[in-house]
Amino acid sequence: MKFSHLHGYLAVIIQLIFFGLFCIFVRYSPDADARHHPLPENATKVETKMAHHSSGDPWIHARTYPMFQDVHVMIFVGFGFLMTFLKKYGFSAVGLNFMISALCLQWAILIHGFFHLKYGTIFVDLNSLLGADFTAATVLITFGAVLGKTTPTQLILVTMIEIPLFTINEIIGRQYLGAVDMGDSMFVHTFGAYFGLALSLMLYRRDSSTEKEGSSYQSDIFAMIGTLFLWLYWPSFNAGAAVGDDQHRGIVNTYVSLIACCFTAFAISSIIHKDKKFDMVHIQNSTLAGGVAVGTAADLMIQPWGALLIGIIAGTLSVLGYVYLTPFLASRLRIHDTCGVNNLHGMPGILAGIIGCIVAAMASEANYGPSLYEIFPARAPPHGTAQLDQLRVLLPDLEGGSGISATAQAINQILALVITMGVSIVGGIVTGLILRLRPFATLKTDELYEDETYWLVEAEEDEHEAHKTISIPMNDAADNGTSK
Amino acid sequence: MKFSHLHGYLAVIIQLIFFGLFCIFVRYSPDADARHHPLPENATKVETKMAHHSSGDPWIHARTYPMFQDVHVMIFVGFGFLMTFLKKYGFSAVGLNFMISALCLQWAILIHGFFHLKYGTIFVDLNSLLGADFTAATVLITFGAVLGKTTPTQLILVTMIEIPLFTINEIIGRQYLGAVDMGDSMFVHTFGAYFGLALSLMLYRRDSSTEKEGSSYQSDIFAMIGTLFLWLYWPSFNAGAAVGDDQHRGIVNTYVSLIACCFTAFAISSIIHKDKKFDMVHIQNSTLAGGVAVGTAADLMIQPWGALLIGIIAGTLSVLGYVYLTPFLASRLRIHDTCGVNNLHGMPGILAGIIGCIVAAMASEANYGPSLYEIFPARAPPHGTAQLDQLRVLLPDLEGGSGISATAQAINQILALVITMGVSIVGGIVTGLILRLRPFATLKTDELYEDETYWLVEAEEDEHEAHKTISIPMNDAADNGTSK
Amino acid sequence: MKFSHLHGYLAVIIQLIFFGLFCIFVRYSPDADARHHPLPENATKVETKMAHHSSGDPWIHARTYPMFQDVHVMIFVGFGFLMTFLKKYGFSAVGLNFMISALCLQWAILIHGFFHLKYGTIFVDLNSLLGADFTAATVLITFGAVLGKTTPTQLILVTMIEIPLFTINEIIGRQYLGAVDMGDSMFVHTFGAYFGLALSLMLYRRDSSTEKEGSSYQSDIFAMIGTLFLWLYWPSFNAGAAVGDDQHRGIVNTYVSLIACCFTAFAISSIIHKDKKFDMVHIQNSTLAGGVAVGTAADLMIQPWGALLIGIIAGTLSVLGYVYLTPFLASRLRIHDTCGVNNLHGMPGILAGIIGCIVAAMASEANYGPSLYEIFPARAPPHGTAQLDQLRVLLPDLEGGSGISATAQAINQILALVITMGVSIVGGIVTGLILRLRPFATLKTDELYEDETYWLVEAEEDEHEAHKTISIPMNDAADNGTSK
Repeated sequence: MKFSHLHGYLAVIIQLIFFGLFCIFVRYSPDADARHHPLPENATKVETKMAHHSSGDPWIHARTYPMFQDVHVMIFVGFGFLMTFLKKYGFSAVGLNFMISALCLQWAILIHGFFHLKYGTIFVDLNSLLGADFTAATVLITFGAVLGKTTPTQLILVTMIEIPLFTINEIIGRQYLGAVDMGDSMFVHTFGAYFGLALSLMLYRRDSSTEKEGSSYQSDIFAMIGTLFLWLYWPSFNAGAAVGDDQHRGIVNTYVSLIACCFTAFAISSIIHKDKKFDMVHIQNSTLAGGVAVGTAADLMIQPWGALLIGIIAGTLSVLGYVYLTPFLASRLRIHDTCGVNNLHGMPGILAGIIGCIVAAMASEANYGPSLYEIFPARAPPHGTAQLDQLRVLLPDLEGGSGISATAQAINQILALVITMGVSIVGGIVTGLILRLRPFATLKTDELYEDETYWLVEAEEDEHEAHKTISIPMNDAADNGTSK
Repeated sequence: MKFSHLHGYLAVIIQLIFFGLFCIFVRYSPDADARHHPLPENATKVETKMAHHSSGDPWIHARTYPMFQDVHVMIFVGFGFLMTFLKKYGFSAVGLNFMISALCLQWAILIHGFFHLKYGTIFVDLNSLLGADFTAATVLITFGAVLGKTTPTQLILVTMIEIPLFTINEIIGRQYLGAVDMGDSMFVHTFGAYFGLALSLMLYRRDSSTEKEGSSYQSDIFAMIGTLFLWLYWPSFNAGAAVGDDQHRGIVNTYVSLIACCFTAFAISSIIHKDKKFDMVHIQNSTLAGGVAVGTAADLMIQPWGALLIGIIAGTLSVLGYVYLTPFLASRLRIHDTCGVNNLHGMPGILAGIIGCIVAAMASEANYGPSLYEIFPARAPPHGTAQLDQLRVLLPDLEGGSGISATAQAINQILALVITMGVSIVGGIVTGLILRLRPFATLKTDELYEDETYWLVEAEEDEHEAHKTISIPMNDAADNGTSK
Repeated sequence: MKFSHLHGYLAVIIQLIFFGLFCIFVRYSPDADARHHPLPENATKVETKMAHHSSGDPWIHARTYPMFQDVHVMIFVGFGFLMTFLKKYGFSAVGLNFMISALCLQWAILIHGFFHLKYGTIFVDLNSLLGADFTAATVLITFGAVLGKTTPTQLILVTMIEIPLFTINEIIGRQYLGAVDMGDSMFVHTFGAYFGLALSLMLYRRDSSTEKEGSSYQSDIFAMIGTLFLWLYWPSFNAGAAVGDDQHRGIVNTYVSLIACCFTAFAISSIIHKDKKFDMVHIQNSTLAGGVAVGTAADLMIQPWGALLIGIIAGTLSVLGYVYLTPFLASRLRIHDTCGVNNLHGMPGILAGIIGCIVAAMASEANYGPSLYEIFPARAPPHGTAQLDQLRVLLPDLEGGSGISATAQAINQILALVITMGVSIVGGIVTGLILRLRPFATLKTDELYEDETYWLVEAEEDEHEAHKTISIPMNDAADNGTSK
């Protein structure tokens, strides 16, 4: 048995280690803990301390849950079916997406938890699960760049390496730089895309484009299931973690950006084709670029026309990327991008980061009112200043920040983008070097984009049978034909 | 290049015009505007005035959002996949549905906004997006009547013309006549269906029924994805715009009507067939008629048995329509209805209007209590009357109406239905005359119900290979072979 | 016409009887009744009494609705598409699932209502609809065991018989024994599975395994739509009926159990195969076993590590069941289980019941705080005791229970499981005996797993044509043909 088929045993070992870690570290957060509703007299010290972290509202999860489920559907149905466009790789697309996501969610809860330990414990509630789903998206984007060219073992390794790097990068960006990125366009989309492209570069092979890389009529329709659920629930992805009117604005901005992006992508896809025909590849992917491009500024005051403009630019950029850039990357830069994640997540993610920087530079009390300091926490006056106390009259819960200027915030936004690019590319290269190590046997050419390598595909065989048998009754000549 | 292939350029022009209009007119409503939470001292006059239109609740969108997403899924996944039943038109069904919907949503926000300008501005929030989705349904229903027989250019024109007419008709019905129609059965379903049938009449062609009009085993299953999501989320469509217990009742009524309609449709579909076999066409469409038929009265006191009865009638009516009426319309009245929208949206819509009239005629304080005047605003006592003040003790927010009687309300309901029929039919005819103009070249017979006309279909080509070989049996040897 | 094709007429009769029963018994509950918002002076005695059953909150449905819709999707899209894995039975899988569910929902509302009459009336609101959906799941699980081997007439009879038995069994378990089962793992999954297996035993036939029982490449991907929506929305199934932090915990536990189960199922599926290949049957089904296994304890204090462990065990157990037990049952015990419901619902359901018993035995104020008595109502102190009054200081709404011990509760949990097994098996056997009666003609061998028996399937014929011709190029004549 080939080493490349040891993924089953590897998975069992990982799962058991996770169980151990869960036993030691993971507990319910107060909001999900029966003992906190109400807190009994015999409550432990930690429980009493944790009570301060509790919302005190037993229904606190109810408001987030519908948006959480939308994001959940995006991860498993959205990404899963989007990748079924390959005609002979449907099982792997939706199946490995399922398997890897289940691994991501567990690993993300643990890694995120280790970086945010409270009293040596990882406290889990619905927000933890939502965060885990966002993290999974990063790995699935990376998966898209190497789709059909990696073994399950390799995908498991990618997941184990990428998630810690993702978490560290996000902490640098959000906590240390105070960068805002409501829709995770930088921390999830840009990171996942360039990690994947760097990985693909390292795994480059001359034979990476085979006949099997194409789609079939059926597989293209299956892929539309993924596209539509991603497109429809994207507002939940961009606004799910926002609060109050920020969330409302995040929904409106994402919706507006997406409808403009969708219509523009159709238009450009047709214009650019010699016979003015639509290309399913663009419809399946470029229609979504608007969701990525508006992500960083999703909750900011960009006004509907701003969101519309972002959608138009993203849709155009993405289609042009598929037509001109993807072939160039593959032929010249030896970067083969199966799903074209650079056009759907990469470039739109960079665009989102730049837009975030521009909008942050223009943000002031004039256009945000006092809530400016809730949206850009780093701009809030430092703790103990008179200015902060004054603001607290209007916003009681406002916490002290570092009182930085709009320009400083804008610079931090760009820094976060640059660092994200750096960490993801270096991470992807290092991961690629590991995956190239001897044991992780690579696939043969005819095993690329092919389910039969790792899946029981009776149907295929049946069909072969069918054809053979059906052909026989026709006439003797046919038998001769086959016997030749 | 044929004029009929200029849709790409047309789309770009429209998108840019929309961008201009968004820049000038569209802004966040107070509920979605950061400056309103809280409103700063330096607020402008308009902002201060708009504050009165603000709910003051930063989470106002949270209650509507889940139902909005259900409706959103109905528009793109529901309608999109329902139309994939054609074996060679799947890309166009789900793809053009996607493109046209994205156009509808933008155009609907603008047109609805122009008819409801505040201080010369279109204020957008989640309700605007929900309203836009309802409007899109109208155009997609029309799309269903001419599915496979129109070019993208023609569909764009239909959208641009139909939405303003739809909006005017709804304003006449709701504002001037005070007609109620919670599920939009008259304003969306009836309007969309008869607009489409009139359009189909004008575009009639002898060759409109080709071999390609059929379905395949796979395409029929794809279509069930559309059917099920429409069927499941229909309660959100009928009750999404309702408030409090009206919404609760709207959910119950729609659910009950749909389960009875579904079961009845299966029964009639089997009974009517000579071998008692189920017909997928009925299962995909007639099971939904109950949602349309209960729409106008969805929030009214029809009791569960009333909803059940409506479902039974609608399911029967719809199946009979497919079996007897659709062929008759095509052969005798030269109205070819690809999806049979007359059976799913047309007749059930008229039925809904009539039911709405009957129920309105029977509505009284006896069976509605004081909330009668919230549900039928036109029946509320006029402003300044003692009767109104008295009611306000119980219902503080009740606004003055025109104090009309149950009979008057019932008459207005029927008037709204008749006017809807009139506007939609005339609108469809005029639109049809425009689409018949020279430039908008019509499709050749073999281009009907065929993706390859406007889509890059690599897979198809593969099949062509197959087809080539398939053509072989034409030669004698094959015939001999088979004749053995 | 065969008696087995009379299902259409049977359905009409049932539908009309249901209409009659709805007219007599079913009315809106106060929460959905316009007259209760606000209650008018001329309210009837019953209405005034019912007002006490009213929440008084006109938006009471809003919190449950999103979870209700998730469950609704599980029933129709989840179960419906999960069963489309059979290559020639797709129409029946998704179609009959649709028909039978619509029947279940009506029958469930009536039967549950008859056992909970208030003032001789069945009061319906959103909770009734949610309960009906849970009940439908039971019948659909049973359907899975006999998939492809029953006629529509037989399925209708099964539904009519199973739902009353299901309701009685649940009342015994919940009301008389005070057993808790938040995710209905015992009352829905275990009951439905063993009812189905008993039924399958009675309907056993030697020819029950035919070539048509297999899947095709396309049908396996369609089935994944069902799997994913079941897997994603399962937290709504297990927690939809819970309140406050119990619901929050139910979401977390189910999510954690499912991600562990999914990853484990993939691992075991690969390990167990000689070539280490994944088997779609396991991916489609065993990944869901964690949702069943954690169901009974979903809202209990099992901690995330407990949920994770349950998922690991369930995933392993389920895959092993498919590989070793299902063939054994079919060959040795003459129990042919088409979908392997024993591995997805049966054994995991029993596991859930045992876990529920163990967790109940360990439940105390120490780990639940006072809310122990809300979660295990039977353990609450009896009415009128000082202990109860004392608890009411913290929990005003707490109702008096029977003050049983943890051990007693644990025993009742096991009793409920045993009784469920007994009722379902006996019920399945009796139903099987009825289905074997002469009139309900059984299917011929070639009618098994075959849509054409009860569906209009034009497409199939087309394909046959294709196959015939495809064989031709095998012989020389064909080559000549092409060279001509």
